[in-house]
Amino acid sequence: VSPPFSPFPVENLPYGVFSHHGAARRVGVALGDHVVDLAVLEAAGLLGSTDGVFATGSLNPFMARGPSLWKSVRARLTDVLAAADPPENVHRAMIPLAEVTLHLPFEVADYVDFYSSVHHAENVGRIFRPGSEALTPNWRHLPIGYHGRSGTVVVSGTPIIRPCGQRREPDNPTPTFGPSIRLDIECEVGFVVGVGSIRGRPVPASAFSEHVFGVVLLNDWSARDIQAWESAPLGPFLGKSFATSISPWVIPLAALVDARVPLPEQAPPPLPYLRDVTPWALDLSLSITLNGNVVSRPPFSTMYWSPGQQLAHLTANGASIRTGDLFGSGTVSGPAEGQQGSLLELTWNGTVPLRLHDGSTRAFLEDGDTVSITASAPGPGAVPIGFGSVDGTILPALPSSR
Amino acid sequence: VSPPFSPFPVENLPYGVFSHHGAARRVGVALGDHVVDLAVLEAAGLLGSTDGVFATGSLNPFMARGPSLWKSVRARLTDVLAAADPPENVHRAMIPLAEVTLHLPFEVADYVDFYSSVHHAENVGRIFRPGSEALTPNWRHLPIGYHGRSGTVVVSGTPIIRPCGQRREPDNPTPTFGPSIRLDIECEVGFVVGVGSIRGRPVPASAFSEHVFGVVLLNDWSARDIQAWESAPLGPFLGKSFATSISPWVIPLAALVDARVPLPEQAPPPLPYLRDVTPWALDLSLSITLNGNVVSRPPFSTMYWSPGQQLAHLTANGASIRTGDLFGSGTVSGPAEGQQGSLLELTWNGTVPLRLHDGSTRAFLEDGDTVSITASAPGPGAVPIGFGSVDGTILPALPSSR
Repeated sequence: VSPPFSPFPVENLPYGVFSHHGAARRVGVALGDHVVDLAVLEAAGLLGSTDGVFATGSLNPFMARGPSLWKSVRARLTDVLAAADPPENVHRAMIPLAEVTLHLPFEVADYVDFYSSVHHAENVGRIFRPGSEALTPNWRHLPIGYHGRSGTVVVSGTPIIRPCGQRREPDNPTPTFGPSIRLDIECEVGFVVGVGSIRGRPVPASAFSEHVFGVVLLNDWSARDIQAWESAPLGPFLGKSFATSISPWVIPLAALVDARVPLPEQAPPPLPYLRDVTPWALDLSLSITLNGNVVSRPPFSTMYWSPGQQLAHLTANGASIRTGDLFGSGTVSGPAEGQQGSLLELTWNGTVPLRLHDGSTRAFLEDGDTVSITASAPGPGAVPIGFGSVDGTILPALPSSR
Repeated sequence: VSPPFSPFPVENLPYGVFSHHGAARRVGVALGDHVVDLAVLEAAGLLGSTDGVFATGSLNPFMARGPSLWKSVRARLTDVLAAADPPENVHRAMIPLAEVTLHLPFEVADYVDFYSSVHHAENVGRIFRPGSEALTPNWRHLPIGYHGRSGTVVVSGTPIIRPCGQRREPDNPTPTFGPSIRLDIECEVGFVVGVGSIRGRPVPASAFSEHVFGVVLLNDWSARDIQAWESAPLGPFLGKSFATSISPWVIPLAALVDARVPLPEQAPPPLPYLRDVTPWALDLSLSITLNGNVVSRPPFSTMYWSPGQQLAHLTANGASIRTGDLFGSGTVSGPAEGQQGSLLELTWNGTVPLRLHDGSTRAFLEDGDTVSITASAPGPGAVPIGFGSVDGTILPALPSSR
């Protein structure tokens, strides 16, 4: 059913939310260049006993149901969609991707962003704290993270309006207000919680796949000038909260089994509550494109902390998780040149601008720039599992903003 | 209808969500020692045209409708409840507070916590950065804030399980994991968003009362040892995210008109986007009780940044707000002794323990301790407007936590 080289072979079957010609939202899976309407398959009885979770137009009810239903639905879907002669209802359920509008694939509950690439953290430390240790003393002991704004998580393709804010230039004792002049990206991988937990009961790393439903690409847009001035002492706020983009397809963990790799060595060994004996470290090949120029290829396998460790840390104090919680890996940067996940690093804080094919240069993003982040993972046999992409184009700051 | 000295006279009419004998949740207003079931009044046609917003068991739909409906419902309620001979349905709608269970009064969307008391920020700076400037350079230029965890905002009375986490003792090069030994409170006032905004469109301070529905008391429980070790460079995370308690009654802005006071002088003058010509600075008298001992009386009128300025700042970068967003004032500390909003300040980081009536002392919270925060505001004439209270009792860390 799926054409060659599609990011969405039948071995993938990522979940999303779409609408067709202005009709109500539906949950679907991507297959080749089509989306399969799961409400149609569910109504036809082809998905087994699903209690109408796909009739709602939201992915959250299905995610909340847990691994047993995730597994049975995936098995039925695989059977039905890979069949040599699929039932008539399958043809009815398939709509060309080109005809649909893709929406935010789930309702975001809490959004947390981690900081788990050692190469990224070292680069940021060297840029902002020259002469000091690149990593803060806590970095190798815990996956540092903070809460972001869930209400401004948007789906790929949503235009990004250049944010305004306060910044202070080095030679000015007082701040000014205006459009950010150091607008950046952060290339990340996001993990989506399906099954929640009870307040007071930490979730160990070993329970990762009982709670986490799937994986998205994430671009944590960042206004470096706003962030630098506001962040002491309570961390990033408006430098990040204007928008966070995610890809429209949630790749289920079951599609990523062949992408699992060992976690890089952690020294010192983490405290017992952070040990992760079966980590979901993933061999994802990320790619960042700016106006059609590939500017970086960050390797996700180089991340220091695993998503299971992030989940264990997030809940170690008894904080509960909910269906729809999203946690980002932090900017993915590899050790080599051309593997960094932010312009801050790729241009070394703007001092070494990128040269694009059209002859122009970029220190940070300009109005009209389009950034696209894609990824693929090894799948069963030689079939790569694609993530699609998370895209965004920068619009000028609004004239009403002073 | 309301007894003397009740925090809930007919001039108050705060909104909450209750259940009675295990029945479904209902929206109500508190009046004296009763709760008035608004679904009953709505069904009886006593609230005018409300489109069934009170039939849902959630306050969010009513909050989302905006100031015009807030005003008309309040006017009808005042008429009906202050009547010498109220209609029969009013008697049917009144249930003794002692018989009901109070729930979280609204579904929390995003939770932001500010840091807007200059006395608190100076105390914290002196305690943690002795020898440096007490305030960071940005403090008087913008209301510093950060995002907290909305999924762990709980209603007053919810037990608070002592969180576990990493801390590093001063004489130890490596961290340990265990129950927090520096568990603290933060006495705050929370503002609840009714009407959302559009991404990319900042909300000016002058639009505060078009968006904000009402006010709650808030206790931002804080594990100082966890917070101190984790916070560099991205701010507080697990030191705060285990629980944030709010009072069950949302005081509508209309009940606080007589409590409005001028904002203290701001020097330097804030940037234009932060100017607030009709500030909602409020003369709230807060009180913190620990195991029945009044340990502090923080005056809210001493806050440096107004809630309108906080809202303007929060949205200045184009971030949108949603119905149910909650933003906290930050710890309320006055300039005088006995006016601080945290044990950190009241005991000067534990070096000057509090002495309680039973002869015991407290540096930070012990298991079994109960903290209650109350407030009142000047109302029309001599009638004070009460906030009720936000209470919490500390339970021991779970044995499963190492």
